[in-house]
Amino acid sequence: MINTVKDRRTIRKYLQKDIPVDLLNDLLSTSFRASTTGGMQLYSVIVTRDEAMKEALSPAHFNQPMIKGAPVVLTFCADFRRFTKWCEERNATPGYENFMSFMNAAMDTLLVAQTFCTLAEEAGLGICYIGTTTYNPQMIIDALKLPELVFPVTTITVGYPEVVPAQQDRLPAESLIHDEYYHDYTSQDIDSIYAYKESLEDNKKFIADNKKETLAQVFTDIRYKKSDNEYMSENLMKVLKKQGFV
Amino acid sequence: MINTVKDRRTIRKYLQKDIPVDLLNDLLSTSFRASTTGGMQLYSVIVTRDEAMKEALSPAHFNQPMIKGAPVVLTFCADFRRFTKWCEERNATPGYENFMSFMNAAMDTLLVAQTFCTLAEEAGLGICYIGTTTYNPQMIIDALKLPELVFPVTTITVGYPEVVPAQQDRLPAESLIHDEYYHDYTSQDIDSIYAYKESLEDNKKFIADNKKETLAQVFTDIRYKKSDNEYMSENLMKVLKKQGFV
Repeated sequence: MINTVKDRRTIRKYLQKDIPVDLLNDLLSTSFRASTTGGMQLYSVIVTRDEAMKEALSPAHFNQPMIKGAPVVLTFCADFRRFTKWCEERNATPGYENFMSFMNAAMDTLLVAQTFCTLAEEAGLGICYIGTTTYNPQMIIDALKLPELVFPVTTITVGYPEVVPAQQDRLPAESLIHDEYYHDYTSQDIDSIYAYKESLEDNKKFIADNKKETLAQVFTDIRYKKSDNEYMSENLMKVLKKQGFV
Repeated sequence: MINTVKDRRTIRKYLQKDIPVDLLNDLLSTSFRASTTGGMQLYSVIVTRDEAMKEALSPAHFNQPMIKGAPVVLTFCADFRRFTKWCEERNATPGYENFMSFMNAAMDTLLVAQTFCTLAEEAGLGICYIGTTTYNPQMIIDALKLPELVFPVTTITVGYPEVVPAQQDRLPAESLIHDEYYHDYTSQDIDSIYAYKESLEDNKKFIADNKKETLAQVFTDIRYKKSDNEYMSENLMKVLKKQGFV
């Protein structure tokens, strides 16, 4: 299994082949064995197979082709609603309309999502995380009819791989592991940590295509811009409020 | 591997036996293959083996015995500092001092943490998530010398299992999976979803020991209280601000 993870890559193109319901349910229910805050299981998973529902979700994800191209789209939601309803039905006063509870639920949700991914890959499926989930949460909330205290945290597209791309680079592992305390990075550290990434032909082309001087500028000026981040931060907080968290 | 996950349980008592450095590094570096926002790898892992460092971390985790009892404690941190430093060194203007960027980094961090756990369990190790990390983040920041734009998201204790407890119950999987859209829960749904949990002798004893009427009251009045959640929410936001996120 460690080799599956070592060899993994994100899969964005899928065969036109359904995932059997029993297989999907087995993978999901096994992923629910992941650790969970106080045994509360603060998540729900919405399974999208219907074409019309994929159409509805697609704009929320900036029409990335994986949404309509995958046989199954999974939206993993932080869910304090089920637990809160249980409390209300049992003469207990819930107190989960706050940021800490959202964080606990979001953590539970991500542990399940990632366990699902590892299991799915071991079963021969390919997955892609769709990071846009928290950029346009309201559109997803509307499409999937998510009530208060339910919030979409991440989306995964799943299917049998059609195209298996080259594996993406990673930073040197030792640069991400700190013994005993955080060892801050010097300029020289930064140079050596990013040297391989900067040496890749694809990244050099990426700089040229975008008419930038450095790869970092492609990130700061195009892909993950300050103004976008600030706008989305405000929006995320607003929708968290609307859903009853915060 | 799916059987390892199906059979898993949290391990809180460990043998007095070190984890070989090479094994730990192999598991960690493999976990860094997990999906990551834009290839940015927005995390750092702090490895605690030193007894004095465990002593320093212990109060932040309410002196839960796993911290001092495990051979290795891993603090998984959201880290936008390394990436920000790279931007600064490359004539690019970073814009990651905001909530969206914290969320992206926290998600990256949790995917790595959970991949590590699955791999560790497959390798015969046992793990325990320590949920108190976000309750007392400042104490951890101080102990581990975390600079701005680095934030402790979760902690995992790891070691060879000494005591393997009974497996914890889980809610019926089908109640957590929604086809196409969120199907809200009725009172009857809630009754049937929680029936098994409420039927367990351990939980009945838990109610009696705590002099409560229902299991839900043990959660709302003792384990996850509204006033605690509200206090911790404010504190979490305050420390996020201090670390330069938000």
